[in-house]
Amino acid sequence: MRTLNVDLGERSYPIYIGGGLLDKAGEYFEQHGLTKKSPVLIVTDTNVAPLYLIKVEGALSDSGYTVVSKIVKSGEKSKSLQVFEEVMTTAIEGGLDRRSVVVALGGGVVGDLAGYVAAAYMRGVTFVQMPTTILAHDSSVGGKVAVNHPLAKNMIGAFHQPEMVLYDVDTLQSLPDREVRAGLSEMIKHGLIWDAAFAKWCGEHTQDLLNLDPEALGYGLTMGCSVKAKVVSTDETEQGLRAILNLGHTIGHALEAIGGYGEFLHGEAISIGMAAAALIAVNRGRDRELYNETVKLLQGFGLPTVMPNHLDENKIISAMMHDKKFKENQIVFILPVSIGKVEIVSDVKLEEVVSVIRELKKEGQHV
Amino acid sequence: MRTLNVDLGERSYPIYIGGGLLDKAGEYFEQHGLTKKSPVLIVTDTNVAPLYLIKVEGALSDSGYTVVSKIVKSGEKSKSLQVFEEVMTTAIEGGLDRRSVVVALGGGVVGDLAGYVAAAYMRGVTFVQMPTTILAHDSSVGGKVAVNHPLAKNMIGAFHQPEMVLYDVDTLQSLPDREVRAGLSEMIKHGLIWDAAFAKWCGEHTQDLLNLDPEALGYGLTMGCSVKAKVVSTDETEQGLRAILNLGHTIGHALEAIGGYGEFLHGEAISIGMAAAALIAVNRGRDRELYNETVKLLQGFGLPTVMPNHLDENKIISAMMHDKKFKENQIVFILPVSIGKVEIVSDVKLEEVVSVIRELKKEGQHV
Repeated sequence: MRTLNVDLGERSYPIYIGGGLLDKAGEYFEQHGLTKKSPVLIVTDTNVAPLYLIKVEGALSDSGYTVVSKIVKSGEKSKSLQVFEEVMTTAIEGGLDRRSVVVALGGGVVGDLAGYVAAAYMRGVTFVQMPTTILAHDSSVGGKVAVNHPLAKNMIGAFHQPEMVLYDVDTLQSLPDREVRAGLSEMIKHGLIWDAAFAKWCGEHTQDLLNLDPEALGYGLTMGCSVKAKVVSTDETEQGLRAILNLGHTIGHALEAIGGYGEFLHGEAISIGMAAAALIAVNRGRDRELYNETVKLLQGFGLPTVMPNHLDENKIISAMMHDKKFKENQIVFILPVSIGKVEIVSDVKLEEVVSVIRELKKEGQHV
Repeated sequence: MRTLNVDLGERSYPIYIGGGLLDKAGEYFEQHGLTKKSPVLIVTDTNVAPLYLIKVEGALSDSGYTVVSKIVKSGEKSKSLQVFEEVMTTAIEGGLDRRSVVVALGGGVVGDLAGYVAAAYMRGVTFVQMPTTILAHDSSVGGKVAVNHPLAKNMIGAFHQPEMVLYDVDTLQSLPDREVRAGLSEMIKHGLIWDAAFAKWCGEHTQDLLNLDPEALGYGLTMGCSVKAKVVSTDETEQGLRAILNLGHTIGHALEAIGGYGEFLHGEAISIGMAAAALIAVNRGRDRELYNETVKLLQGFGLPTVMPNHLDENKIISAMMHDKKFKENQIVFILPVSIGKVEIVSDVKLEEVVSVIRELKKEGQHV
């Protein structure tokens, strides 16, 4: 079992990464001094509930905790204000009070939704994350929680740090192949923005990671979390540096939004976004090898790097302009400088983006 | 013009209290270094918009700010997640970004709603309060923002401190009589919990306050804000002391909830709640004079102090148990010790509450 500390002063918290952790949920709750007098709410989804809900409910009950659970439909569509209100209803009816704990048992969607419930319920209660996907290694660090607005993703949210993250890697064995790939996309991103050696390691261990080899997975998740933790510790509320975590996200979020949050998995959308960012950088003078290497690494994991032909450039641009990263009439782009290093650029013109979208559509037709 | 500083470390902010402040909104924005590159959103309601919206829009535009406005229906029902989402839509369509400012122009409902929008939009933007009611002197200090859940009041919210409060007392001249009385209820509360001399002053200046005499009003609002600021500075996130601000609110909130947030104004509900708290204290051994004096003071302002006969005790109790103040199976009550002093009590039994509700119903039949 590895423990990684996310250093945020009085809001610091540990991430426990290892096997068999869900069975020990009650012990971890006790160790963190969480009260047994107030009910605990577990938020999970229709995919995860049949696999792990009874296990976690049992582990907490055995330690003397009262548990209520809310199962939401799996998928990004549950990150809506409507589902948020439904979870709030369960919390109120379940008698949760200010000392209660809200647990996110699931992937990024459940983490964001349950985290925002924890941030907002009675103006904030304790939050515990139990990620069950690879992608969630990203969202479980940094305290960003949110739901989507029909017009744009993650528009309604908060910064709310968890009390702890219990990352039981046994749960990853049950992930569908497509989600494994999409999850690894964020792991690769952490290499691309910060750590050339780790990016290289990802390229060399592609098959181990895709096969969910426990040792490779444990190391990769710890490295990914650790890059993110370093960035977040430096800039908790995204005033500056933290923006580098958004590599691939400017275009990626737009793709998710116009696909109605259904066509692409998040990791797939940012994979295309990372390819696009590399191409913008190349068009601005970086060596073409930067784009080639990025695309090769992503494709090795079976991730998409071309733009589907049916997507309208204008719709993508329009969705981008609704994004939070669109600040004072400028698009803030994260562009690679080399593998393992990025820069924050605020003078990318819309034409450059349109041009790259078209190039990536052509790439698609060559495949 | 009086300036009161709310001392919260790096989240400290000034409250400016005086006449003609709305006309100078642009100057205050500049003085606080708020950017002109990002649109400002003014949230106001159907009562306030016809009176002051053009004035504030004009003052900000004249200083070079781009302004979008959202007018919600006046009344507590606008503190819903549905209206919250509508305001978010206006914010997104208006192109607000992370450096934008959300302005609450109105009373407590608009302040709570707009404040929660500011807390949640892109995970938090700058918030400016422009209160137009007496009641808002209370909600404009302390950073508590929220919307209601159909099952209970203020269940969904955040702590989000404003950048500044512009309290233009000229706006209070247009308040309907009933709202004046209800607003003064919170002012009296600040005397009752903290400052016997100020409570006495309220009793001696009842007519001046009801007549909206500018000097009396200016002094009363400054004193009210100042009591609240002292309490909040000591306990920003309501871990302990801040609970004393809830005098009258345990029962008051329940009355509002079962009245569907329509029967009582907030100040009326807590007036009954303060009478009830005094009576619980008397039943537990305090001198009956404590209850008599409390009721006399409130009645002097034309505020209700008896329980309407048609309200079901069980419904009141049930609504109380959904309240945030219901913690680990105990009701936390704020009970008066003497005029100007209260205590936090956690062993009040439901029977005591039921008994007082019945006594206050009987009082009503004697009137």
